[in-house]
Amino acid sequence: MTFNVAVIPGDGIGPEIYEGSKKILSKLKEIYKLDVNFIEVEAGDSALSKYGEALPKHSLNVIEKSDMILKGPVGESAMDVVVKLRQMYDMYANIRPAKSLPNVQSKYKNVDILIVRENTEDLYKGFEFMASDGVAVGLKVITEFASKRIINVALSYALKRRGKITCVHKANVMRVTDGLFARICRELLKDKVIFEEMYVDAAAANLVKDPSKFDVIVTTNVYGDILSDEASQIAGSLGLAPSANIGDKKSMFEPVHGAAFDIAGKGIANPTAFLLSISMMFNRMYEISMDSKYLLASKSLENSIIKVYEKGEKLTPDIGGNAKMIEMIDEIYKFIS
Amino acid sequence: MTFNVAVIPGDGIGPEIYEGSKKILSKLKEIYKLDVNFIEVEAGDSALSKYGEALPKHSLNVIEKSDMILKGPVGESAMDVVVKLRQMYDMYANIRPAKSLPNVQSKYKNVDILIVRENTEDLYKGFEFMASDGVAVGLKVITEFASKRIINVALSYALKRRGKITCVHKANVMRVTDGLFARICRELLKDKVIFEEMYVDAAAANLVKDPSKFDVIVTTNVYGDILSDEASQIAGSLGLAPSANIGDKKSMFEPVHGAAFDIAGKGIANPTAFLLSISMMFNRMYEISMDSKYLLASKSLENSIIKVYEKGEKLTPDIGGNAKMIEMIDEIYKFIS
Ligand SMILES: CC(C)[C@H](C(=O)O)[C@@H](O)C(=O)O
Ligand SMILES: CC(C)[C@H](C(=O)O)[C@@H](O)C(=O)O
Repeated sequence: MTFNVAVIPGDGIGPEIYEGSKKILSKLKEIYKLDVNFIEVEAGDSALSKYGEALPKHSLNVIEKSDMILKGPVGESAMDVVVKLRQMYDMYANIRPAKSLPNVQSKYKNVDILIVRENTEDLYKGFEFMASDGVAVGLKVITEFASKRIINVALSYALKRRGKITCVHKANVMRVTDGLFARICRELLKDKVIFEEMYVDAAAANLVKDPSKFDVIVTTNVYGDILSDEASQIAGSLGLAPSANIGDKKSMFEPVHGAAFDIAGKGIANPTAFLLSISMMFNRMYEISMDSKYLLASKSLENSIIKVYEKGEKLTPDIGGNAKMIEMIDEIYKFIS
Repeated sequence: MTFNVAVIPGDGIGPEIYEGSKKILSKLKEIYKLDVNFIEVEAGDSALSKYGEALPKHSLNVIEKSDMILKGPVGESAMDVVVKLRQMYDMYANIRPAKSLPNVQSKYKNVDILIVRENTEDLYKGFEFMASDGVAVGLKVITEFASKRIINVALSYALKRRGKITCVHKANVMRVTDGLFARICRELLKDKVIFEEMYVDAAAANLVKDPSKFDVIVTTNVYGDILSDEASQIAGSLGLAPSANIGDKKSMFEPVHGAAFDIAGKGIANPTAFLLSISMMFNRMYEISMDSKYLLASKSLENSIIKVYEKGEKLTPDIGGNAKMIEMIDEIYKFIS
């Protein structure tokens, strides 16, 4: 079985991070004999200005035939790339770990939260219209089908972790939509895990108060967007957070951070979030193929990154170091075995 | 001019806090010759179980004739009390200061943010329905009228503060609804203040990263709910945050925290948020009457609270002290002059 991966290098710091990461990918492929093909495709702001479309047809053709998508950060056109792909290929589970890394200055220690965000519906469906002059309406859609699906994903993660799930909603106000989500949470999770419900405003406060109270958070799309950014910052930095968009047929892996145009081309971008996303991608390949070489490659990459943080010598300026991106990548490269 | 205030003591720790606060209210009334009548009304969980309605008619009759509402925390029926009153009396501006207090342990110092939250529309309108079996839909309504109104409120606050406004939205995804709000922000605020736009996910992360970057935040109802809880926890504790719901005809003042049933009756509730809400109420009376005695009473109460925190001797257990609520109130009482 060969995995075809469509790579969107993206905008801003995206292309240089992908370029720099290639040697790591090659080394992993070689050591673990990974059966993976990478095919670069254009998408994002640069594609938009070149072709008038952020996600041009020739890119979609490649993506269509690929098993996975590895995506760098995209600029202002992100919505037309990432949300479109998530929905087009029904990549319904947005998996966002917020985990502390060694030697990253942070007010919080040992954060280890997994946010499982529903990725296809809610206001992200994009059903919006002007109901009248000056009156805009958007539809928040929450279905039983999508709720069950995402809650079951959260369940499978929780059972492999500390066995606790916090279901985040605002069913005291949105009784029908969030009420549906909350009810299904109760039905599927009670008695199976340490189950807790929390209103989204309280969750936003409790993440600040004591992140150690959380293990897995499962929530709808909009709340998940907000809480995952907050949680990754609490874990140290939004700039370090990877993510996976899992679907039954296709999955996409991407850093949570943006294109950071201000530091593009300076060679100081932090490759961590992109590389951790690659580690998540190999893990997904393992889940699909059940071939342990992908799991080993995933772990090897993750451990090598952690070792570089433990040593703390080759870190980029965003986290207080003075290494160039390529020095950090070289250091990670060395640890891979 | 006499101000009639309908007081909802509320549930859980609400009634004991109001009871304890009465001596402070009396002292302020006496010293400053405030022309204020307080009339207690029932609302909340206790009213619900007594009359089958969280907001019974006899309470509404009193509220209808009053100028202001002073509300303690309400339990599970909060939605039917607070959201109903906000909409019924068009109290459109939810004003939520997140400000550090001396001697409150916190990872962040000198936080001073004002969140101006639109309080009447968005998904809080409660327009929700089952579109089909297992398919729930809620309407997010954003109007030009309400957006203009709240943005102008934010502007008037910013001009009295550090002159900066961060307009929080997610117009990259919700292009019509949040797009409308963002456009009006630009139209009304650019060139008038230091103006900044931020996506709500980034705002949630940036509050954690560096709250000192914010002065006034203006946003729609749902985002405001989430960010104000987060910000007040960053300032020290959600339990200390007051709030105002301002309308042209009526206003309501309430702590942000909940009914805390677990500590009700133990005499250890922290009265700060309720008392600071009273200070905001007197300030509103000043804005309406332009009679400086209300402003002086507002300041006197706020300063007395701050002095008790500066001394740090009579603080309740929630913030690391070992005083009873009544000891803390007595200490505040002493400082009032
Ligand atoms: C770029 C944007 C559309 C996207 C989202 O809101 O989902 C991003 O913030 C994310 O969380 O991946
Ligand atoms: C109790 C609830 C309905 C309310 C809200 O969501 O507005 C509360 O959280 C608040 O922020 O005042």
